Amino acid sequence: MRTVLLTGFEPFDQDTLNPSWEAVRLLDETLINDDVRIVARQLPCVFSQAPAHLHALIERFTPQMVIAVGLGPGRSDIALERVAINLIDARIPDNQGEQPIDIPVAAEGPTAYFSTLPIKAMVAALRAAGIPATVSHTAGTFVCNQVFYSLQHTLAGSTVRSGFMHVPLLTEQVALAASAQPSMSQETLVKGLRVAVSAALNTLHDVRETGGQLC
Amino acid sequence: MRTVLLTGFEPFDQDTLNPSWEAVRLLDETLINDDVRIVARQLPCVFSQAPAHLHALIERFTPQMVIAVGLGPGRSDIALERVAINLIDARIPDNQGEQPIDIPVAAEGPTAYFSTLPIKAMVAALRAAGIPATVSHTAGTFVCNQVFYSLQHTLAGSTVRSGFMHVPLLTEQVALAASAQPSMSQETLVKGLRVAVSAALNTLHDVRETGGQLC
Amino acid sequence: MRTVLLTGFEPFDQDTLNPSWEAVRLLDETLINDDVRIVARQLPCVFSQAPAHLHALIERFTPQMVIAVGLGPGRSDIALERVAINLIDARIPDNQGEQPIDIPVAAEGPTAYFSTLPIKAMVAALRAAGIPATVSHTAGTFVCNQVFYSLQHTLAGSTVRSGFMHVPLLTEQVALAASAQPSMSQETLVKGLRVAVSAALNTLHDVRETGGQLC
Amino acid sequence: MRTVLLTGFEPFDQDTLNPSWEAVRLLDETLINDDVRIVARQLPCVFSQAPAHLHALIERFTPQMVIAVGLGPGRSDIALERVAINLIDARIPDNQGEQPIDIPVAAEGPTAYFSTLPIKAMVAALRAAGIPATVSHTAGTFVCNQVFYSLQHTLAGSTVRSGFMHVPLLTEQVALAASAQPSMSQETLVKGLRVAVSAALNTLHDVRETGGQLC
Repeated sequence: MRTVLLTGFEPFDQDTLNPSWEAVRLLDETLINDDVRIVARQLPCVFSQAPAHLHALIERFTPQMVIAVGLGPGRSDIALERVAINLIDARIPDNQGEQPIDIPVAAEGPTAYFSTLPIKAMVAALRAAGIPATVSHTAGTFVCNQVFYSLQHTLAGSTVRSGFMHVPLLTEQVALAASAQPSMSQETLVKGLRVAVSAALNTLHDVRETGGQLC
Repeated sequence: MRTVLLTGFEPFDQDTLNPSWEAVRLLDETLINDDVRIVARQLPCVFSQAPAHLHALIERFTPQMVIAVGLGPGRSDIALERVAINLIDARIPDNQGEQPIDIPVAAEGPTAYFSTLPIKAMVAALRAAGIPATVSHTAGTFVCNQVFYSLQHTLAGSTVRSGFMHVPLLTEQVALAASAQPSMSQETLVKGLRVAVSAALNTLHDVRETGGQLC
Repeated sequence: MRTVLLTGFEPFDQDTLNPSWEAVRLLDETLINDDVRIVARQLPCVFSQAPAHLHALIERFTPQMVIAVGLGPGRSDIALERVAINLIDARIPDNQGEQPIDIPVAAEGPTAYFSTLPIKAMVAALRAAGIPATVSHTAGTFVCNQVFYSLQHTLAGSTVRSGFMHVPLLTEQVALAASAQPSMSQETLVKGLRVAVSAALNTLHDVRETGGQLC
Repeated sequence: MRTVLLTGFEPFDQDTLNPSWEAVRLLDETLINDDVRIVARQLPCVFSQAPAHLHALIERFTPQMVIAVGLGPGRSDIALERVAINLIDARIPDNQGEQPIDIPVAAEGPTAYFSTLPIKAMVAALRAAGIPATVSHTAGTFVCNQVFYSLQHTLAGSTVRSGFMHVPLLTEQVALAASAQPSMSQETLVKGLRVAVSAALNTLHDVRETGGQLC
């Protein structure tokens, strides 16, 4: 049986939970399209550990597809990231207290990689299923982008498609923090991940419709 | 059996559904606290009809409490409105094509009414239940504010408590419109209305904790 | 010679300057329309002092018009406030460390007052002069709203027109704080205040064009 | 005498002016540091013309440094763009009515280029001069990004440093459109461009301080 590897992150900064993991973990060992197994694992929010952790998971599960998921605080929809850049510039320390500034993810790597997921078909499928989604052109410069870049770097040249999604804060999380940030319910989020994975598996060639932004 | 009257609005502008009605209608003829019945009705988004429609409902059901609910596009949480003002200033036409500008809701009425709901206890109960909520200090100048003002004007001096809540766009609605607006799932919204009504029924004297805003 | 009284606030919270005072003070003892003198004074950001301070200024200068100006952090334009409410609900302490919650500005006063300035003519004049402006329907629940309400309460029934304007952060202030907030240059702000005062003096009956908001 | 080439864009979409050109044109034939001449030219907002136009300017003026400037509607500060991507995905048609979707800027080019300007020193200099500025990690997928990518591609391997800046809407422009968008005055913008160019010329090695973003 073929395998899709999904990763979520452990909580970071002040948070006690991370929506990416709260959604991803519920899909572990579930099936998509009846014949594809999802394996869900957590990554540390630590620059010095996350890439090696991810690579070990890829070696162990030899997945057909890999989608890393991270929290995008302030976002109101599921964002399909288009490009990973070879740059770390940490605005806050990671979970080990490290805050690297302006160093590459991979010393000899290219400046950037595009996602190899059919991101526009995934956005279209999500919207059709009633789940807000968009294409994003920056995954930031923190551990999310590092993992995204490492993932694309590792799988470059292979037939394994891979990419990254940012998800909003959870509705409950925002409520308990008395925050005014946009959010998404855990139920919507889990459904969204399933729809996105399914659309990715079912789409060989991405659709060509605008997902661009002016600036 | 005591009755709580909830109202939602019909769709307006370009929309084909109105989240306030999509949530409110699911609570019609349900019970709160085992001994309070909810009656849910729809109001027209028409300046010349909405107040009379609301007054007729109050006469008919003699409710113990009335909460009018409306859509607040762009909001990310449930907003407990604090003050209704004696002003209509329509930025767009209503559903009859009327766009009154700078006229009072009630020619002889006072400048404003405060909500008589325990809005801070309601916000606290919503947050504790995992539903984002906040106190708002303007209900705008469209039909929402007109209905809110009319409601308070009608019930002024009575023991029937009343007020107004704004709710976000529905998650599905935002997705299908390919919009980037914040949203709330219908399930969260319906749960939120129940929690808010229950908190209002159970709170005799509102809590005193800040819900203020700087400007 | 007739007099217009303008007030700005002292800095509050963490700030070392307050844009409302930085703009207002430059207009002190200048002329508008050749025959109207502007008197500019600073108000303390203190609940227990600001209203008395304002009333003393009105008694001393017997102005023909009074416009209080305050900072609206996060705003991108000059906001002509439409309504003052009889409520104090402090989200942060004032400059004396007091943080009153849910008390009236004036124990026996009405729920609200409308501005008696021709706010729509003022918005139109500002925009025509190239200065972003809008009508706002909440002045918050902090000292700004308290001063606005006190001002309208004091002058209620008189022929002296009065109201309140919120202004954005200063461009320099935002830059030095490395903030991402919108701002306005001091030059634009000072010009805007002159245009607004002039429009108010020259407009007997306000124009009737929409300045409303949906929610 | 050494030369710095600045480019701005012609108006596009519904606009009758483009802030990037309104600012850049005022610096044409002015001096920076007494010995560096600025040459300012306008680029068409047309995918099929802008890169060739830019390359011709570089050939003609053999500048020591090139900074392309474009409008970023909705931005409140000057954004120093960090990365140009090899992608065109037009959300709206260009000024010739063309709307290419998901094609590369340069068929054989790398996925992305980083700016070779000392962008963090430039942000620091701007803020110190009282002008809001930030590092941005996406220049979008429209003509701005196309020009940025083309510029870096053309100068790759040379000693000529180059990059891209996005600027806000002009204050007057926002006012006349009755818009609620953030803005910057033309005076601030022109001063900002001078400060940025000067900082770029005076900085051999960029400072290492965080300019990162989480997601």
